[in-house]
Amino acid sequence: MAESFAPTARTKLRRRPQRGHYDKKTVYGILDAAFICHIGYVADGHPCVTPTAYWREGEAIYWHGSAASRMLRALEQGGEVCVTVTILDGLVIARSAFHHSLNYRSVMMFGNAYKVDAPEDKRARMAAFMERLYPGRNAELERVRPVRKEELKAITVLGLHLKEVSAKIRSGPPVDDEEDHALPIWAGVVPVQSLAGTPVDDGRLAAGTKLPAGLADLSHLGLGRRR
Amino acid sequence: MAESFAPTARTKLRRRPQRGHYDKKTVYGILDAAFICHIGYVADGHPCVTPTAYWREGEAIYWHGSAASRMLRALEQGGEVCVTVTILDGLVIARSAFHHSLNYRSVMMFGNAYKVDAPEDKRARMAAFMERLYPGRNAELERVRPVRKEELKAITVLGLHLKEVSAKIRSGPPVDDEEDHALPIWAGVVPVQSLAGTPVDDGRLAAGTKLPAGLADLSHLGLGRRR
Repeated sequence: MAESFAPTARTKLRRRPQRGHYDKKTVYGILDAAFICHIGYVADGHPCVTPTAYWREGEAIYWHGSAASRMLRALEQGGEVCVTVTILDGLVIARSAFHHSLNYRSVMMFGNAYKVDAPEDKRARMAAFMERLYPGRNAELERVRPVRKEELKAITVLGLHLKEVSAKIRSGPPVDDEEDHALPIWAGVVPVQSLAGTPVDDGRLAAGTKLPAGLADLSHLGLGRRR
Repeated sequence: MAESFAPTARTKLRRRPQRGHYDKKTVYGILDAAFICHIGYVADGHPCVTPTAYWREGEAIYWHGSAASRMLRALEQGGEVCVTVTILDGLVIARSAFHHSLNYRSVMMFGNAYKVDAPEDKRARMAAFMERLYPGRNAELERVRPVRKEELKAITVLGLHLKEVSAKIRSGPPVDDEEDHALPIWAGVVPVQSLAGTPVDDGRLAAGTKLPAGLADLSHLGLGRRR
């Protein structure tokens, strides 16, 4: 298995090539730290960008939704997509307006979507999604309240093999013009992070139901914990 | 001025219409609480989704970048776009795998981009961007280190008039099947929020330079403050 994606005409960064990353470790690290992707596709000749939850398994990402969804129906025959994931890491504050920026990590993925068709495959993909979010919960639910056939039927699962992929990262302090460092202007970074708060139950728990340990600690999600 | 956007065939939510919002107050509230949008466009027949910073002024959004940027060059002649902004608000944990979800606020905007051409217009748009992020900073910088003509020339500013726009919001607890409430399974929401940390200077401040009050309090950005 190659350790990097081969850059193509549309994934190779031409400006600021130092921000481009093609190694799978970097790409997967970003993909496994976010929850929402933006799926770009062409519908009747017009661009359309739909946000949706996704997950990665090995060399593919998956997303799902109602079988009646416009986006999923448009893509289930193998439609072409550009799927982009972006994480904001900070506000970059420079000594000149021109050099203000954002710190971020992003991944762009190009290819043709495919439909996960066989019920046992759909079941396995959805179980993997649950496991990625809440390890152990799928097994717990399957014991008490298994996924029903008609529930599986009501959703469409699409996948994208990761082949034409690049990451783009900006990190670190502002890059000011050398002579501007003498100016009496504050410059630096305001870090930004997505944090998970304390879980709030829905007020309808059956008597004696406790928060499982797996939901009390969501550190595997790459979310910080809000205190 | 109309208070709502008129739904069109592609902005009207067909499934779960209760999640659709067309009033400008709701749409602008979401747009003014996020920093990064995803610009979808068609390049040589292929979909492409580029993440970038944006800002809103009245009935338009703007974004900018290097005049050499592929995306900006593709769109500056009035290319068609779908621009999507998404904010993750929570992980929705239900009593069945099927009803797990995410809480989010998103806006989709369709139309043709236009280039902000006149230097004085570009200057005004960029000043508004700075003012949206860091009120007062633009005036401070203009006194000490004004934007140079060649800096303005090096960037392209694009805009999109907000006409064909909708918001989609999911909030609140999981919606479980009625009979599942008796099961001994925890259900509720893990709130997620983007928080700003303490500003970190770049280690090259001129002697005596202090953090301006405007950067110490970023509450206007809709970011929580990390403690």
